[in-house]
Amino acid sequence: MVRQNVARRAALVDAAIEVLATEGARGLTFRAVDAQAGVPTGTASNYFASRDELLTQAGGRIYERLQPDAATIAASLSGPRDRDRVTQLMKELVDRISSFSSGYLALLELRLEATRRPGLRAVLTERIRADVDANVRYHLESGLPGDATTVVLLYLAMNWLIVERLTLPDVFGEGEIHELVASAVERLLP
Amino acid sequence: MVRQNVARRAALVDAAIEVLATEGARGLTFRAVDAQAGVPTGTASNYFASRDELLTQAGGRIYERLQPDAATIAASLSGPRDRDRVTQLMKELVDRISSFSSGYLALLELRLEATRRPGLRAVLTERIRADVDANVRYHLESGLPGDATTVVLLYLAMNWLIVERLTLPDVFGEGEIHELVASAVERLLP
Repeated sequence: MVRQNVARRAALVDAAIEVLATEGARGLTFRAVDAQAGVPTGTASNYFASRDELLTQAGGRIYERLQPDAATIAASLSGPRDRDRVTQLMKELVDRISSFSSGYLALLELRLEATRRPGLRAVLTERIRADVDANVRYHLESGLPGDATTVVLLYLAMNWLIVERLTLPDVFGEGEIHELVASAVERLLP
Repeated sequence: MVRQNVARRAALVDAAIEVLATEGARGLTFRAVDAQAGVPTGTASNYFASRDELLTQAGGRIYERLQPDAATIAASLSGPRDRDRVTQLMKELVDRISSFSSGYLALLELRLEATRRPGLRAVLTERIRADVDANVRYHLESGLPGDATTVVLLYLAMNWLIVERLTLPDVFGEGEIHELVASAVERLLP
């Protein structure tokens, strides 16, 4: 085992995310990660005990990188607590997630891989359920209109809108995507 | 070229769907399809000019198999045209699509593969846009309540609900899934 360092480990996990997005779960090998990270062949295998560990860490890291930064959180807590504000925050959320397209595509690859790997399935289930619950809590506590059902239904609709945008961007154009976000908020708030 | 027949071609495309679902897009090789279909190695390569052709045909075939049969269509056109009926039809739709889980998972694999293959992306875009439009037309013409926006927003929410159910079934339990379908209809009808 070579001496390990935190920055290199993070760079390898980030490289794994790019490999997942571009090559698919099946293309994720230690060798491909080394190549993507621009490090000597054999490096990744010094940092991760198994491919499973790499998959799991990639999943965790995507969620880490999808979290809003402190400035974004502060901004989202300011402004009026009304329907228009929810629409605006949802548009920002969809744009922010879409802009990390490799992360979102990698997460879809991990979901599909989870149908074949019970360990990965357990980790992702816990992570995503916690994320849904945190979204509900944040929405209600920050005084935005709508109830828990609103938040979960928005989560469903926004996720598939992002899938369309990132995988088949011409099914709905950019204009239609923003209209659909507005319509979803309009109708899902009770 | 061996003599071709229609039934064998269909069986090979169906085998390709199973391979996509279980092995991922990267695992889709002529050899894997032959093995899945239980035919001699070399058979699939006599039926399809390329892997691209096989991917495209698999996409078309999934939509064919997802279409309701005549009895299902007739049943859906009967009964009252009210909110409760929309909820019931949506539950049936989600259950029908979920029950062809390999088809739905294969379609997700194809969407991810489409980010790497412009030809496949064009075919899927056309197919899915036509499917969304047909859903809207069917809904409006059959006298169900709701407008085009209702149908598209239901399409978004139901798709992600199916993704959750098929990839990480413990994020929402079965009971919660049916409640979410009912809530989505309740709120998305204007």
